[in-house]
Amino acid sequence: MKKILVSLVVAGASLMGVSAQAQFAKPEDAIKYRKAAFTLLAAHNGRLGAMAQGRVPFDAKSALDNAEIVADVAKLPWAAFVDGTDSGETKAKAEIWKDNAKFKDYAGKLQAESVKLVAAAKSGNQDAFKTAFGATAGACKACHDDFRAK
Amino acid sequence: MKKILVSLVVAGASLMGVSAQAQFAKPEDAIKYRKAAFTLLAAHNGRLGAMAQGRVPFDAKSALDNAEIVADVAKLPWAAFVDGTDSGETKAKAEIWKDNAKFKDYAGKLQAESVKLVAAAKSGNQDAFKTAFGATAGACKACHDDFRAK
Repeated sequence: MKKILVSLVVAGASLMGVSAQAQFAKPEDAIKYRKAAFTLLAAHNGRLGAMAQGRVPFDAKSALDNAEIVADVAKLPWAAFVDGTDSGETKAKAEIWKDNAKFKDYAGKLQAESVKLVAAAKSGNQDAFKTAFGATAGACKACHDDFRAK
Repeated sequence: MKKILVSLVVAGASLMGVSAQAQFAKPEDAIKYRKAAFTLLAAHNGRLGAMAQGRVPFDAKSALDNAEIVADVAKLPWAAFVDGTDSGETKAKAEIWKDNAKFKDYAGKLQAESVKLVAAAKSGNQDAFKTAFGATAGACKACHDDFRAK
C-alpha cells in the first residue's frame, strides 16, 4: 500500500513537472520570465515604498494603481521556478527546490499580502496603507533572505 | 492668444514628461522595465498562439488565464517610453518619439484588442478566441513593424 502511494506521488510530481516545464521551451526562458516579473514588482513596490516612507506625497490613486499591478504580477513568477532552472543567469538558490514547500509558502504569503495591500489602498487610509505595504515588503524580504543568493 | 496656448501646451508637455520620468531613476531602468513587460507579454501570447494555431489543444481555462495576464500587462510598457530612452539596450526606434501620437494609438489598440481577447476567451467559443487572438497579435506586429528595430 505504502509502495503504491509513493508511486502515485512520484507520478503526480512528474506530471506536474512536465506540465509546468512545457510552458517554457528552454530553462533560460523560464529564468528570463521570472526575472521580468520581479523587475515589474520591484518597480511598483519602489513607488509604493516611496509613498509609504513619505519620500513622495501619498497619492491614493497612485497607491491603488501600483498595488493592483503588484497583486497581478505577484501571481506570475512562481510557475517559472521549474526543475533545471537553478543555474545560469539566476540568483535562485538550490534551496528553492530542496525546500519547495517553504518556498511556495512564501510565494503564497506575498500574494495574500498584496491582495490586502490593494484593499488598504482602496480604503484611502494612509496608516492602513503603510501597514499593508510593510507586510508586503516583509514577504518579499523573507523570501529573498532564504532563497535568493546575494 | 495663440502664444499663450502654445506656452500652455509646452508647459503641460513638460509637466507630463517630468511626472513620467520621475517614475524611473535612470533611463536604463525605464528600458529594463518595458522590456520586462514585453517579455511577459511574449510568453503569454506564445501560449495563446499555440492554442489559436492548434499546436496545443484548446483549453478554455488556460486561454482565459493567459488572456487576462496579457490584458493586465499590456497596460504597462508605455509609461516607460520616456524621453531619453531611445538609445542603450533597446530596439526602440526614434520614430516612437517623433510620431508619438501614432505610437500611442498602437499602444491603445493593443490594450483594446487584449480586452476583447479576454471577453472571447470567457465565451469559451474557439472561433471567437482565434479571431480575437489574431487581432491582438496583429496589434503587436503593427507596432513592431513601425517602431521596433530588427
